Amino acid sequence: MAYHFDVLGLGVASLDFIGVAAQPPTLGAKQPVAEWLEAGGGPVPTAMVTLARLGLRTCMAGAVGDDMYGQRVLDDLQQAGVATDGMQVRPGRTHVAFVLAEPKTDRRTIWWYHDRSVFDTLELDADLVRSARVLHVDTHLPYTAIRAARVMQAAGGLVMLDAERIREGTLELLALCDVPIVSENFSRAVTGEADPALAAWILHERYGRLIVVTSGERGSWCVGRGESFHTPAFQVDVQDTTAPGMSSMVGFSMACCRAGRCNRLSALPVPRRHGL
Amino acid sequence: MAYHFDVLGLGVASLDFIGVAAQPPTLGAKQPVAEWLEAGGGPVPTAMVTLARLGLRTCMAGAVGDDMYGQRVLDDLQQAGVATDGMQVRPGRTHVAFVLAEPKTDRRTIWWYHDRSVFDTLELDADLVRSARVLHVDTHLPYTAIRAARVMQAAGGLVMLDAERIREGTLELLALCDVPIVSENFSRAVTGEADPALAAWILHERYGRLIVVTSGERGSWCVGRGESFHTPAFQVDVQDTTAPGMSSMVGFSMACCRAGRCNRLSALPVPRRHGL
Repeated sequence: MAYHFDVLGLGVASLDFIGVAAQPPTLGAKQPVAEWLEAGGGPVPTAMVTLARLGLRTCMAGAVGDDMYGQRVLDDLQQAGVATDGMQVRPGRTHVAFVLAEPKTDRRTIWWYHDRSVFDTLELDADLVRSARVLHVDTHLPYTAIRAARVMQAAGGLVMLDAERIREGTLELLALCDVPIVSENFSRAVTGEADPALAAWILHERYGRLIVVTSGERGSWCVGRGESFHTPAFQVDVQDTTAPGMSSMVGFSMACCRAGRCNRLSALPVPRRHGL
Repeated sequence: MAYHFDVLGLGVASLDFIGVAAQPPTLGAKQPVAEWLEAGGGPVPTAMVTLARLGLRTCMAGAVGDDMYGQRVLDDLQQAGVATDGMQVRPGRTHVAFVLAEPKTDRRTIWWYHDRSVFDTLELDADLVRSARVLHVDTHLPYTAIRAARVMQAAGGLVMLDAERIREGTLELLALCDVPIVSENFSRAVTGEADPALAAWILHERYGRLIVVTSGERGSWCVGRGESFHTPAFQVDVQDTTAPGMSSMVGFSMACCRAGRCNRLSALPVPRRHGL
């Protein structure tokens, strides 16, 4: 089968307002920021943009509000080469966030707002899901993501999850995904195990999936098929640390879509996926 | 002379993004807000909107950037009945702020961004200044405000200042204003006196002006012509505490423009103002 897209992303598309602190921030005070930026955000859109830059055909599904931010989010995705066939405009507010970035410490403080009414009426286009080889989901739209994951499984495609925290429906979604990539906080909350390497083993045994647990600058732990490996964090000039699971999502999608180029594809647990 | 406007405001017009905290905020964490609003902000525009609601003819002068926020600021002012004859659109970013409001404590945390290039090329229309009876200024555009204050003084109008903090040019501007309304922090910084009632006296004697020192929920102290009075804060259902000096600005402007209705107009120090 010829796929129209390599990867379809389904999740929250945010407009992030990023303030770069000019001084150590204080609650309860009025303070200037040295810089103010807007940028499309959210873990799934960020992964789609990165994959598009790496040459994959990506598409984003989700919803924005009919406010001043929605069109900006769509424009940003399109300019980055991400198709927006699955994006819907709904009455209400686009997901927004204020990100306070502290340059010297890499600390981030984020206040985000999510308008449920924008997402609750999201209609899933099953044909769009089937038009891609890989589906990326987050935990923000669990019931739509569960439906999409089932469609993708039935079509023989691969489902990847970026899970930062447990929400309603998250564990049901987790059980449906081929590659759950979860934060250290998430793995600790689900397993009770503070050591991310051990938590990755517990999750692998519980769900029978390839599992990645990410831990920011400590790197990530991957467990699958009875073996595990640790990937140290890359030494990069960090511009923004707000999407830690995103790099793993991108790495695995690239691996799946460009199989010959990645040795670790063999670590994938289930060989039922065709055409990958 | 028939004036075209009662009050002209000259200062920063901001687009404020207001997040209403859903939980006690923490630096370094990712947290939801219960509500997200945008609203035009800045002490001078807020005073102009309030005065327009009270029936005065108001106009705003200042600059917005050519970004997605600028037109929104202009639209908001116009919808509130404030003329925007003096507003200019300049290449760069509109003044923006993220305001984190905590409902139970009334604490506010503000990160603001000011693009100097938008304001540095602001052109002062002296005829517009002369078309109003009262000029309201803040401390953000001191040199333009100084020029405007001189034009207003020469025309026999009244100049009011809302000063929250000392910036370059602020003290020169203060000396030119008929009614400086300053924050407690400002009065402490200028006089070294922590008691706002005493600081008001010191400022009155130093500058020979009617002085108001505002102190949030403790109310304000006004000193003029060798006498003083304290105004307790009104008990109101506070929606937003981000513009404490604004109420005094509004009160004095109403007094000046509707003289017969306010006994305290007699406290104004200089009787040279005609037509007020």
